[in-house]
Amino acid sequence: MMAPLTIGFLGTGIMGGPMARNLCRAGHAVRAWNRSPDKTVALAEAGVGLAADPAEAVRGADVGICMLSSGPVCDEILLGPDGALAAMAPGSLLVVMSSIPVETAQRQAAAAAQAGIHYVDAPVSGGERGAIAGTLAIMAGGSPEAFGRAEPVLAAMGRPTHVGPAGCGQLAKLANQAIVASTIVTVAEAITFVESGGADPAKVREALLGGFADSTILKQHALRMIERDFAPGGPAKYQVKDTGTALAHAATLGLTLPVLSLVDQMFSDMVAHGDGDLDHSAVLRELYRRNDLPLP
Amino acid sequence: MMAPLTIGFLGTGIMGGPMARNLCRAGHAVRAWNRSPDKTVALAEAGVGLAADPAEAVRGADVGICMLSSGPVCDEILLGPDGALAAMAPGSLLVVMSSIPVETAQRQAAAAAQAGIHYVDAPVSGGERGAIAGTLAIMAGGSPEAFGRAEPVLAAMGRPTHVGPAGCGQLAKLANQAIVASTIVTVAEAITFVESGGADPAKVREALLGGFADSTILKQHALRMIERDFAPGGPAKYQVKDTGTALAHAATLGLTLPVLSLVDQMFSDMVAHGDGDLDHSAVLRELYRRNDLPLP
Repeated sequence: MMAPLTIGFLGTGIMGGPMARNLCRAGHAVRAWNRSPDKTVALAEAGVGLAADPAEAVRGADVGICMLSSGPVCDEILLGPDGALAAMAPGSLLVVMSSIPVETAQRQAAAAAQAGIHYVDAPVSGGERGAIAGTLAIMAGGSPEAFGRAEPVLAAMGRPTHVGPAGCGQLAKLANQAIVASTIVTVAEAITFVESGGADPAKVREALLGGFADSTILKQHALRMIERDFAPGGPAKYQVKDTGTALAHAATLGLTLPVLSLVDQMFSDMVAHGDGDLDHSAVLRELYRRNDLPLP
Repeated sequence: MMAPLTIGFLGTGIMGGPMARNLCRAGHAVRAWNRSPDKTVALAEAGVGLAADPAEAVRGADVGICMLSSGPVCDEILLGPDGALAAMAPGSLLVVMSSIPVETAQRQAAAAAQAGIHYVDAPVSGGERGAIAGTLAIMAGGSPEAFGRAEPVLAAMGRPTHVGPAGCGQLAKLANQAIVASTIVTVAEAITFVESGGADPAKVREALLGGFADSTILKQHALRMIERDFAPGGPAKYQVKDTGTALAHAATLGLTLPVLSLVDQMFSDMVAHGDGDLDHSAVLRELYRRNDLPLP
């Protein structure tokens, strides 16, 4: 058990709210700020302190945590005029848990270093359910020292893994999203194949579970495809944003990723065809469309 | 517990040998034939009867099982002059467990029906280890009646699932191989991406286990990629045979499968570059090659 810390928490939306609550439950003194203050009311009842602005939330805190919605918003709140970083004390720790571009995380790490502040980028996977249960997969980038300080704090929200220097948490998250997208298309192709060939796709899925073809996507998304249950879940329009970000970063590394490029194109086409608000498993429809089959 | 049956078993190689042994162990009277008789010696010591030719193995048997190496070999031994099918009694059951083309299985089923013999195609997944342990995934195609008779026999060798009419077992096996091939390339792309970006791929893999990106391939083949352990396993030259067969069958169904086509091309290139005897996880090398990176 670690000594209780003071933690400033920025961004208490669908994910950040339950994460702040779990930090409070672990015994830390949490002070939260959110742009729309109504989202903090329930947190206050759970014992979380409230701050009027980002600087007030992190001032004097051991740790500042940022779970805002995007790279530009994080930059604005952390680095802008009256930003949170300027209010943090040298020697303290800034943990950015939003999913933001790798380069943004690296730039923030440099800005933090200039102010003598430790920095960890720690995006998460596991959704609202994982945030509430405190079982998020947390992919963390930063110096060994910074991660060492962040680890026990992160452990109150899920399972942290140190994957490399600053920015690498975001890199791992992009790899996660890339694998998810490509596996969904892979499974959708297999289902199109067996349905067209006259087999029972539910039985084929069942036969394949536990073998080399098994995956979380085969367990969960294949079932959605077979049952034509395309309520999101993970909407396709977000999926294509992730594959686009991953490919853009791959390009900065001089990398070509053939399958991911094709998968990105298929999700883009799916969105262009008006299916962007459906679950990403509805890429099955895009395969049917390309094959001139009646849409499932 | 079912009543013991008499079973003629054709093809007692790496897979067929332990499968025949498990049938014997389950109490059935098994009579085996193999083209090279030396492979049957150990089986005889385990209580399996030996036959001098395929017809002798299946004559008077309740069930004939075929685990020969390919579609043409199965056709020759089953349907050729002095073939096994002609020696089987009307009302008996023929189970072809080899991986053969869908069309071959459908043709064999028709020939069996003409002779009044039930037919099930039941290819397997799980390798030599699964054959020995009796834990093979068995994908079975055939009429409900034929499958009903085959099921308790198949259960002595693994976990049978009835996926559709004759030929559908092969279809499901092709879907299995297609998913495996595409997932391996997907995971290889993610590893190329995180290695190029400066993250520790072993730690990224660890972070992703248990989430939406998790798969048997991420558990097993990603580890081979990270450790550069490319001893087969599943040699790439067989992988490309499977993806080619799946695409050829997709074409007969009028289907385009974009990711599988690309994956087939990558494995073909890999074989053309002399890596065909390496494990299919060595497709990582093909990705490095395409990106002009030093070969892992």
